[in-house]
Amino acid sequence: MTTPHPATAAPEQPILRARRLGLHTQHQPVVIMRTDCHVCRSEGLSARSQVLVSAGGREVQATLFQVEGEDLIALDEVALSETAWTLLGVEVGDAISVTHAPTLESLASVRRRIYGNRLDAPAFASIVKDVVAGRYTDVHLSAFLTASAALPLDEEETVDLTRAMVEVGDRLSWDAPVVVDKHCIGGLPGNRTTPIVVAIVAAHGLIMPKTSSRAITSPAGTADTMETLAPVDLDIATLRRVVDAEGGCIAWGGAVHLSPADDIFVRVERELDVDTEGQLIASVLSKKISAGSTYVVLDIPVGATAKVRSEEVAAHLAGRLRTVAARFGLTATCLQTDGSQPVGRGIGPALEAIDVLAVLRNAPEAPDDLRRRSATLAGAALEIGGKAGKGEGAALALETLADGRAWKKFEAICEAQGGMRVPPIAPNVHPLLAPRTGRVVHINNRKLSRLAKLAGAPEAKAAGVRMDVRLGDEIDKGEPMLHVHAGTGAELAYALEYAARSGDIVKVEP
Amino acid sequence: MTTPHPATAAPEQPILRARRLGLHTQHQPVVIMRTDCHVCRSEGLSARSQVLVSAGGREVQATLFQVEGEDLIALDEVALSETAWTLLGVEVGDAISVTHAPTLESLASVRRRIYGNRLDAPAFASIVKDVVAGRYTDVHLSAFLTASAALPLDEEETVDLTRAMVEVGDRLSWDAPVVVDKHCIGGLPGNRTTPIVVAIVAAHGLIMPKTSSRAITSPAGTADTMETLAPVDLDIATLRRVVDAEGGCIAWGGAVHLSPADDIFVRVERELDVDTEGQLIASVLSKKISAGSTYVVLDIPVGATAKVRSEEVAAHLAGRLRTVAARFGLTATCLQTDGSQPVGRGIGPALEAIDVLAVLRNAPEAPDDLRRRSATLAGAALEIGGKAGKGEGAALALETLADGRAWKKFEAICEAQGGMRVPPIAPNVHPLLAPRTGRVVHINNRKLSRLAKLAGAPEAKAAGVRMDVRLGDEIDKGEPMLHVHAGTGAELAYALEYAARSGDIVKVEP
Repeated sequence: MTTPHPATAAPEQPILRARRLGLHTQHQPVVIMRTDCHVCRSEGLSARSQVLVSAGGREVQATLFQVEGEDLIALDEVALSETAWTLLGVEVGDAISVTHAPTLESLASVRRRIYGNRLDAPAFASIVKDVVAGRYTDVHLSAFLTASAALPLDEEETVDLTRAMVEVGDRLSWDAPVVVDKHCIGGLPGNRTTPIVVAIVAAHGLIMPKTSSRAITSPAGTADTMETLAPVDLDIATLRRVVDAEGGCIAWGGAVHLSPADDIFVRVERELDVDTEGQLIASVLSKKISAGSTYVVLDIPVGATAKVRSEEVAAHLAGRLRTVAARFGLTATCLQTDGSQPVGRGIGPALEAIDVLAVLRNAPEAPDDLRRRSATLAGAALEIGGKAGKGEGAALALETLADGRAWKKFEAICEAQGGMRVPPIAPNVHPLLAPRTGRVVHINNRKLSRLAKLAGAPEAKAAGVRMDVRLGDEIDKGEPMLHVHAGTGAELAYALEYAARSGDIVKVEP
Repeated sequence: MTTPHPATAAPEQPILRARRLGLHTQHQPVVIMRTDCHVCRSEGLSARSQVLVSAGGREVQATLFQVEGEDLIALDEVALSETAWTLLGVEVGDAISVTHAPTLESLASVRRRIYGNRLDAPAFASIVKDVVAGRYTDVHLSAFLTASAALPLDEEETVDLTRAMVEVGDRLSWDAPVVVDKHCIGGLPGNRTTPIVVAIVAAHGLIMPKTSSRAITSPAGTADTMETLAPVDLDIATLRRVVDAEGGCIAWGGAVHLSPADDIFVRVERELDVDTEGQLIASVLSKKISAGSTYVVLDIPVGATAKVRSEEVAAHLAGRLRTVAARFGLTATCLQTDGSQPVGRGIGPALEAIDVLAVLRNAPEAPDDLRRRSATLAGAALEIGGKAGKGEGAALALETLADGRAWKKFEAICEAQGGMRVPPIAPNVHPLLAPRTGRVVHINNRKLSRLAKLAGAPEAKAAGVRMDVRLGDEIDKGEPMLHVHAGTGAELAYALEYAARSGDIVKVEP
């Protein structure tokens, strides 16, 4: 069916001018226009329409809000939120055009997935492309992620999603036969081995361009923790310079744009507090593949209240990770580790950074569990990279910590990333006291994480929890079991109110 | 574990004053505060936090945006979007308090549902309560609806969701043994029988307090169509007055708050273009139960491109509807009808209203299919209500149309609802011409709906499609098959561009 072009085609738009309000809407691009402006009327735009905003050859999809009256903006102005402003790269007064957002064709694939049909590679590619172009609303993103959790992604779908996520991002390559990487499958508060592992491995001359995420559902991601010690928002050129100079880095993956789709998915997963196997694998591996890694050591903590709760689940996850990684020429080594209690003493960005510093500097109070776990992971990398014989990597790693080589390398990496920082201290600290005399028989990782988040972590860098006890410790009634560190008095109150009603976070039995 | 109250409890908030910006954000309550205001700093609020806004004993949950600089609002002001302003009922300068939104406990049930666990009645009750309180973000709403589509609600869950939706809304009761209602399970463009059925049934003295929805994924809901003929935003008192006076009404369900949860779900379903059996049943029946109906006649159109595509699916849906209805003391009669092509000539609010008027007024151009279908449904209601013998209802209904009693009743209902209106006419009309001479062998309802929506329906009341042909018609090349009616030139262009690339909407074969 063909039709002649209508006599009433869309008229030329009158010129609209960019206005900056300094409006922060987090990631969501927002534009504000007058309800009575010519464009809103001729295009039939209504409040909360999705619109396509163009200026100087760039485009961004935004949510439209409208205002009545003269107070806020003039009739020929379009006010842009900071996110929209930055993405468009406009100046005050630049000409802006606004039209209906184009039809979202890939949503048909999301609907098919909701109704239980599996998707093929082109479907994932088109979904991820639209997601990265900012064309998915929160409703669409949440539907895609929920559908991929309700009917879990199978192996082929996980491969296809991983590839789609790699292809929309930048990609690094290195002139080295072995490029090592590591990753921990979260869920264990305080398990902040990465900065230590990178320092040890790079001290031996191996290449380790480590990018880390911010927290998804936990009180701190490695990037959040590392940010209290040095800048982590490195662009690709800076990251390459740091790695060329020092062999390793600890950067925030989101700033490098190695997996821009993942940054968007993670935000929604955090809001839902949902983190599934397929999405997890695609998230982890897309970043390793984009970073140009050839080997990755994966730490999978197993424990009753860790993210992975049984050895069977860990073995399944490890198998799936190895298989999907192999499809991209990446060799994955998976280590199951103890996930029964937090690692180190701190939970929260700055509190974990303090543990990391203590281990690297051989401080007398350094948590031994964090030291040993880091040495195990670094040892596996040293063996892969041919720097230690089979079974001798962990001993070499401990030696590299003890003789100060790791600390020296860490200082050099921090300097190269922009200068070392001192982690901040929280202004509000309050203990939780033992309700009776006895022995610590159980520590609930999930409740601890919740407590640290209510105290303000990870947004408030200094916030979180510092543990005073470990499993098996004897404690007297009234002694502190842990301290809550909060950014504000209100957050401290929220956290303590939660502690009072949540049942045992730390269980003491006579 | 108990803890003493912290010495650093949240300090008294400095007073913030309400500012009105005239900002339209559709349903989403938004507040804008200065990044550097005391409350944002002491509470640790960041852009896009969910916050609880209180004033004069009322509360509303809102999304927080922040601004930098002095231009937009003063340091002690909180700007409220129109939705937030109305919900709080404040005046300019009123004292406002803002805190973190409370933890959303019912989200744990949504997560359990995502992972394939079925929910019980208390879980649905707490979810629906939080939804109606405005505590679910788009991410949460979409996850709940997607999870309920990916693993379809079973019968018990559908009953529990229906009950939860009834319990959060207002509820009507009538001093009559028989209160009839009707509903069409959508998916068939132009199937606008409701105003005709209500007029016929009420003309015989039966009680029919009909509330209808706006479009979910279609170009027009009955409320959208009826709104072009009379006001439909009736509050409960007005609705009761209309029904007491005339026996029937055709009101928008959302204004009556019979199922406030449904209004929220429908918005998200529309954004996803997803409409599932369980949600559909809970949506339909919650409104019938709240309206105090004892009998409901359900029209289920079946056709290859209708919402229900086979007699088997229709039978399953009918069975589930009857069973769930019976649990609430409501008797449901389900009629399968022809869903192979649109009913009447118009698709879109005003264009459908014009068909309705033609049938009620016995105009010579009145579409006979709309007349006969309305008579069938009204006939079933007349038989249920004891006004016609078994098998004699449809004939009585046709007689009631022919002798003008239905038209007289319809006029009286419109007057009681606030005065009869004349449906608007679109300013941009353009034909789609037959590409060859031949016979109309197929009409794609889904593509027609899409075409009408791109032309601006249902937001633009006059927009939509007017059919010039029906299945089996002979047509010459170059004759119009249909006319697109658009609100704006831009919308006409979108619609025609879609028609040009969508393949056959109306299929003509030699």
